[in-house]
Amino acid sequence: MARILITSGPTRQYLDPVRYLTNASSGRMGAALAAAAIHAGHEVVIVSGPVSVAYPAAATVIPVITTDEMLVAAVNAFEDCDGAIGAAAPCDYMPHLVLSQKMAKTGEPLKLELIETADVVATLGQTKRRDQWVVGFALETEDRRFRATVKLETKHCDLMVSNGPQAIDSNQNDVELLDAKGNVIAEIHGEKEYVAKELIRHIGEHVTCRT
Amino acid sequence: MARILITSGPTRQYLDPVRYLTNASSGRMGAALAAAAIHAGHEVVIVSGPVSVAYPAAATVIPVITTDEMLVAAVNAFEDCDGAIGAAAPCDYMPHLVLSQKMAKTGEPLKLELIETADVVATLGQTKRRDQWVVGFALETEDRRFRATVKLETKHCDLMVSNGPQAIDSNQNDVELLDAKGNVIAEIHGEKEYVAKELIRHIGEHVTCRT
Repeated sequence: MARILITSGPTRQYLDPVRYLTNASSGRMGAALAAAAIHAGHEVVIVSGPVSVAYPAAATVIPVITTDEMLVAAVNAFEDCDGAIGAAAPCDYMPHLVLSQKMAKTGEPLKLELIETADVVATLGQTKRRDQWVVGFALETEDRRFRATVKLETKHCDLMVSNGPQAIDSNQNDVELLDAKGNVIAEIHGEKEYVAKELIRHIGEHVTCRT
Repeated sequence: MARILITSGPTRQYLDPVRYLTNASSGRMGAALAAAAIHAGHEVVIVSGPVSVAYPAAATVIPVITTDEMLVAAVNAFEDCDGAIGAAAPCDYMPHLVLSQKMAKTGEPLKLELIETADVVATLGQTKRRDQWVVGFALETEDRRFRATVKLETKHCDLMVSNGPQAIDSNQNDVELLDAKGNVIAEIHGEKEYVAKELIRHIGEHVTCRT
């Protein structure tokens, strides 16, 4: 059986001590994947942004706030894992400047320069050992299949789960699973618990048995 | 007894269908105020942004997402209320342009122009009838007393609750209550339930009995 790292939930990038950029990721897909993986006999480590979802008690949970914190925690945890599933939705932009005090409103527009954060799944994909595997998630609102295929390649993933914005903060999901060559090997829709169980089964068939 | 409008929780301002600007307001202070007000015999209407806190069953809850939605819902609800307590932390900046599709990352910095959203409590304060009252909350990281006094005046509030960023997403709060002239009439700290009970008592003494 494998030891699996699951990233889950959103991250936050603060502009000042109060305001931040984020997304509505609930951590439900990550929690469902953890439960399904544990049920299948795997060990699970979860690196999670701030969520109110409950993770399985049998999982080790490492809480983080920002994308950089998720990156560091995930890279560290991945060393002792056989594979990683990137179910988190890390905030992918951060302010170039972060203020140490709450900005006072001035009545004027505020020009903000955002820079890209590190890509957690791409870092895991690019640095994985030959005996490790990485499954990514791609959430797109248009050109879903194309963009998921591009992400699969640039992030060096073994499998890519492609879904849409309907997945965010929902109990349901509707996904396509792409193999490393970009072929659709499964279409799964239903409650996140069902989708997670099917994904863990497919991942098991494709990657955990390679070694 | 009075009919009280309470705004509660954060609001979100979306950049695209996935990413948004917000803050960590949990709605706990609003929920505690609602419970204390109901316990004191008042009727409560809550206009709340997205939160996972549970509001008292006896309160009418109007859910909103954005600051504009909170403004419209609060102005409408306020018509039938004796007073309002602005415990929400509405997102006070929004992108000048909102994209209808998820932005793809380009590797380049992203220049974002943010404009101020409408000020919910200021709008209530500026448009209140002579028989209505408005209590604001000021959350500041520096010059707390001064900035709270400025907000008290510009927002035409009858009372202002001044607190710090420690209040956000916490069970505790540590507040100063300022009257319309900027005098500190109470300092309250403890569990949000206790702070809420004390605030409702002070509000009752100062405003609900004016009519």
